Amino acid sequence: MKRNLLLLAVFVGTLLLYRNTAFAQKARWIWYPGDFDIWLSNKVQNRRTERGSFFPVFWKMDNHYVLVDFHKVVDLREPEAMSIRAEGTFNVKIDAKLVPGMPEKVLVPAGRHKINVKVFCQEAAPSIFVSGKTIFSDSSWLVTYEDKEWIDETGKTSDLSATSYLQAAYGDFTDPLRPPSTFRLPVVAQSAVRVEMSPRSRLIDFGKETFGFLRLHGLKGNGRLTVYYGESREEALSAAGAETLDQLQIALQDKRDTVMPLSKAFRFVNIVGDGNVRLDSVSMLYEYAGMPDKGSFTCSDTALNRIYEVARYTLHLCSREFFIDGIKRDRWIWSGDAYQSHLMNYYLMNDNTTVTRTLYALRGKDPVTSHINTIMDYTFYWFMGIYDYYLFTGDKLFVRQNYDRMKSLINWVLARRNQDGLLEGLPGDWVFIDWAAGLSKQGEVSFEQLLFARSLETMALCAGLADDTAGASYYGELASSLKKKLFDYYWSDRQQALVHSRMNGRPTETVTRYANMFAIFFNYFNDVQKQTVKKSVLLNDHIQKITTPYMRFYELEALCAMGEQAYVLKEMKEYWGGMLRLGATSFWEEYNPHVSGADHYAMYGRPFGKSLCHAWGASPIYLLGKYYLGIQPLSAGYGTYLVQPALGGLQWMKGEAPTPGGNIRLEVSRRQIKIKAPGGVGTLRVTSKTLPKGGNISPTKKGENIYEITIQPGREYVINYTAI
Amino acid sequence: MKRNLLLLAVFVGTLLLYRNTAFAQKARWIWYPGDFDIWLSNKVQNRRTERGSFFPVFWKMDNHYVLVDFHKVVDLREPEAMSIRAEGTFNVKIDAKLVPGMPEKVLVPAGRHKINVKVFCQEAAPSIFVSGKTIFSDSSWLVTYEDKEWIDETGKTSDLSATSYLQAAYGDFTDPLRPPSTFRLPVVAQSAVRVEMSPRSRLIDFGKETFGFLRLHGLKGNGRLTVYYGESREEALSAAGAETLDQLQIALQDKRDTVMPLSKAFRFVNIVGDGNVRLDSVSMLYEYAGMPDKGSFTCSDTALNRIYEVARYTLHLCSREFFIDGIKRDRWIWSGDAYQSHLMNYYLMNDNTTVTRTLYALRGKDPVTSHINTIMDYTFYWFMGIYDYYLFTGDKLFVRQNYDRMKSLINWVLARRNQDGLLEGLPGDWVFIDWAAGLSKQGEVSFEQLLFARSLETMALCAGLADDTAGASYYGELASSLKKKLFDYYWSDRQQALVHSRMNGRPTETVTRYANMFAIFFNYFNDVQKQTVKKSVLLNDHIQKITTPYMRFYELEALCAMGEQAYVLKEMKEYWGGMLRLGATSFWEEYNPHVSGADHYAMYGRPFGKSLCHAWGASPIYLLGKYYLGIQPLSAGYGTYLVQPALGGLQWMKGEAPTPGGNIRLEVSRRQIKIKAPGGVGTLRVTSKTLPKGGNISPTKKGENIYEITIQPGREYVINYTAI
Repeated sequence: MKRNLLLLAVFVGTLLLYRNTAFAQKARWIWYPGDFDIWLSNKVQNRRTERGSFFPVFWKMDNHYVLVDFHKVVDLREPEAMSIRAEGTFNVKIDAKLVPGMPEKVLVPAGRHKINVKVFCQEAAPSIFVSGKTIFSDSSWLVTYEDKEWIDETGKTSDLSATSYLQAAYGDFTDPLRPPSTFRLPVVAQSAVRVEMSPRSRLIDFGKETFGFLRLHGLKGNGRLTVYYGESREEALSAAGAETLDQLQIALQDKRDTVMPLSKAFRFVNIVGDGNVRLDSVSMLYEYAGMPDKGSFTCSDTALNRIYEVARYTLHLCSREFFIDGIKRDRWIWSGDAYQSHLMNYYLMNDNTTVTRTLYALRGKDPVTSHINTIMDYTFYWFMGIYDYYLFTGDKLFVRQNYDRMKSLINWVLARRNQDGLLEGLPGDWVFIDWAAGLSKQGEVSFEQLLFARSLETMALCAGLADDTAGASYYGELASSLKKKLFDYYWSDRQQALVHSRMNGRPTETVTRYANMFAIFFNYFNDVQKQTVKKSVLLNDHIQKITTPYMRFYELEALCAMGEQAYVLKEMKEYWGGMLRLGATSFWEEYNPHVSGADHYAMYGRPFGKSLCHAWGASPIYLLGKYYLGIQPLSAGYGTYLVQPALGGLQWMKGEAPTPGGNIRLEVSRRQIKIKAPGGVGTLRVTSKTLPKGGNISPTKKGENIYEITIQPGREYVINYTAI
Repeated sequence: MKRNLLLLAVFVGTLLLYRNTAFAQKARWIWYPGDFDIWLSNKVQNRRTERGSFFPVFWKMDNHYVLVDFHKVVDLREPEAMSIRAEGTFNVKIDAKLVPGMPEKVLVPAGRHKINVKVFCQEAAPSIFVSGKTIFSDSSWLVTYEDKEWIDETGKTSDLSATSYLQAAYGDFTDPLRPPSTFRLPVVAQSAVRVEMSPRSRLIDFGKETFGFLRLHGLKGNGRLTVYYGESREEALSAAGAETLDQLQIALQDKRDTVMPLSKAFRFVNIVGDGNVRLDSVSMLYEYAGMPDKGSFTCSDTALNRIYEVARYTLHLCSREFFIDGIKRDRWIWSGDAYQSHLMNYYLMNDNTTVTRTLYALRGKDPVTSHINTIMDYTFYWFMGIYDYYLFTGDKLFVRQNYDRMKSLINWVLARRNQDGLLEGLPGDWVFIDWAAGLSKQGEVSFEQLLFARSLETMALCAGLADDTAGASYYGELASSLKKKLFDYYWSDRQQALVHSRMNGRPTETVTRYANMFAIFFNYFNDVQKQTVKKSVLLNDHIQKITTPYMRFYELEALCAMGEQAYVLKEMKEYWGGMLRLGATSFWEEYNPHVSGADHYAMYGRPFGKSLCHAWGASPIYLLGKYYLGIQPLSAGYGTYLVQPALGGLQWMKGEAPTPGGNIRLEVSRRQIKIKAPGGVGTLRVTSKTLPKGGNISPTKKGENIYEITIQPGREYVINYTAI
């Protein structure tokens, strides 16, 4: 079908040169890269309880380096007083000479001098805060965990740039009086919306899914008090089934307010007392990370707007010190879950220190003794997450700080290949893929090889950024060779798809969606293959359906990547809309439209095992930003980017996508596109496919169905397209 | 020369069957192997100060695993209540099912059940104390830092037997109310012996080298008070030169007693106040490990007895939470120093948990990023120390607990070999050998290859103990091949010795004592080579002399191993006696008879840099036990052993050598040997060489100059030898 389009670009805005916001030079708390993150993740992940019992992770937890040396060479025009604060015991050296005591202030003479501050701290990550007139602790300082000061300087292989967080949503670590270990998320008081009283209990409804510390007012008497938390009314009322609870032994003569020591997820709480225990009322302290939204999306469809709103709330609830899986049960940092949160984050809060904090916590430290979270696929999402992070932020320093840990992890993986160079689950490995009935994890699963190939591509890219030329070609070749095997070993001409696995050196007959849908948006398939697989797999009802929002994320992404926004819009309204119609106030870990009532809350063989607020439920944020507004970086940090809007049947939509330089603002209707970007060079691409079918459009550029215009920073472009 | 000897064995004692002392089954605090040790070593090693400034180590400090799972399968005849205490947050599972809350008591049903206790502790090593009627926490429990509970059990590669200390001199960790992190060395008050008052200062003499916390009584006034510590009077009086000091800002209206926060080494303290600061008196809290002596040595020579006494005191002062180098300056755990302390310990306190604690602390954890203490030779002493430990104690469990760390360390070393398979110092390596003027550390030093070969032999042995048959032959072959190279590359026919090093693939001309003396007691030389090297190197004044007690240890050991006890006795009396004649109350880090006065105290370019109480100064303990009493194990844990007494010119000597089953008691005079051993099978060997030259002796067994008799446990043997 051939259409005609008149593209009319109107220059409206004024020319604003793109510039980096020049921060006033300022001291911050700095630490060894990843160390605060790992320390904090130990604390956070060990807050999980199951029916009152402590429930920690089942993989190796790592630790900060307890002794590190921070150093910097300065060149001063005049002598400068430098004040020093540290988390831990410390010493200061100027030009390798110890300054007496543990000085709060040191006078650095004029000229070129090396400053060392060496800190020991067992309990928390050693950190320093140094400030003077021109000397400031920031990421220009180097840090090492083995200073080898008596040995040849060339031995200092462990020097890295120190890490500090400047843009952390919840605090920028610029207060010398608040060392990193004092960090706590903020809380704000919230009230219940409904209370149902019974003789020995009361059921409190906070109106929607929430998270925080329950507060009991005017508690008094003697006896036991049990708090059953519920994401659903049914859960709170199930003494035997509630996933989380608190039990208190009360012996209070006078009324007292009590705050529960651990934060919990709930909408309902059921409070049951025995003896003569009484209380006046119940409220809560809502705990939040306070990341402001930068991105946005609204459109002509109010149901979709509601989905976006609930997705937004879901993602915020699950974005805390780290991007965690869900707020009720695990509250852990799972790599596969975090990977999706990162992608959503780039379109919503764009709080990228929380991305790096999460990536550091996931990776932990050497030696590698298992896959990340023990899951093979989760190791690969970690690598892919670093690629995405670099693409969305352009933060090369983080890649360099992590490169050694990337190398040791990928080398650990490479050592586990079998004789055909493929990976299969070895003892101790969990091949997860998805929660899906009967899904085989045996043999060499195609999906795992695909993620492995992508991880090797990431290694090649990051090797380049870390100036490891040999590594770049080594990993690049491994990636190419593995990608070739993917097609040689798994492509079935008969089924027109990648099959699920190989067993005993032979491909199986089963086709699943996983490898096929990823191969689409990885661009491992060519256009012909993509169209083929769309029919043979994605839109084929005989292929096992996906029931988790986790994998729906990628399934819908694959369809969007092939221009099926109209179809995906319908799916979103059905699937996420389905949860809303059941009264969801946040999106779930899993949703099966075919069950009913409280059965929706069951999972893992437990009546309320399912999380009703799960980060991976929030994927519409990502899909709407990347495939409807159609905004995505093409090179690091939005240096170049693409805007390819697709209404998918909507009358209009508008929104913003955060970039390192600020927001790209976009409005799209059936007649007009308005766009303004703060930096980078964009390509606005309009295709006959993605525009509404109503108008007659004709090509002005680059072939008959694709129209492109370059977006320069700071100008507003208004494109009207009308029938000729 | 041929002599005749009548060996008359008289059976005196009663038959006592050797038995292991059957400890009443008892619960103890247990932890992941090495974790308490590493945690404690971080604490201890970060107490070093230099003139009031914090002075930490310059290598990587490691950490305990913050999250570990202890488990044991029990089989109970009847239900049993088990009480649980933990250092950290914990949960309990019975047969994989969580017990509610953090229970102090759990009822385990009758039958076969798996108990898991999982503990998180960031601040200290996670530890548990479990006790019931038959269930006790001890080393029969397993522990892992990555339980992978959801995965195939076979993935639990990190299961190890938990560690507990039962025989720790300073506490056996059997008190449930005192978790491991509460451990402190005991202190006891001690008084000064002399005080010299001056207008603004007072000099206090404690009579001999000591260690502890200075206590100021009746402190009052306003102003600054400085305490200068001195191992010598000169040091205490040198405000500019004293290595350690305390500065206090006093503002006290009423008299108060003050104890210094950090323990220090001193004999003298000089206290200088300004303003109107006054104090009544000064005492100290002597801090000690309280390891009782098991071994002993006395003889007819009072000067030698005094040397033994001061060596004993020196070793005790340097044997604290760990075997440290010396008490004034570093107070660190140095592998080369500790190696000697261990050997002395086997002949004195035989406190072997302090040996394992020290070995754990030295090794730290993976990944290996540098040599132990950054020193190449110190890596090898660590391996050798494990061999010795096994030989003296027979503790196979420790070897198995450590085998993975041994492997990763030796493999790290193996990866650093050059193309000839030899080691030379790479960037970051410190090739130490000894403190000796002009000693070359360049190229491939023969001494390092020799220690490397011995370490590979240790690996082969320990691989066998850890059931790694492939490893045993792999490391065994590497050891043989390296030993061959030692002779191929370094033996000089012209000089009749191993030369010091190779440079650019060619042997140098220099001969030093190091490799040659070690090759003697390693038995790498044959008897002919030994005799040759004795002349060409050991007794050759043209070869650079050794001035540290550290290397004198090995030099004298080599001479003793060749029967030169008479010569060594003279050397001991001259060298160690020399320090005593200068007023030493403990033995020094280095002693050069050719300097005088306070110059003795200088080292490292600092007037009082030398440590006057250094563990390696105490070697007579080892030499007298192993080569005069002549007692040494031949197989693990004194299963078989040798007693080969040598009077070396003494009239008589008597002493005891500790073994796992108790002490071997020995008395030797010029006419009689009395011996009684508690276990194992001993060989009492008497040679014409080692017996006094006075008597006529004739062979009764095994060739003309060697007489042997088998010592069975529990009997006392009295052997009279008289001229025929």
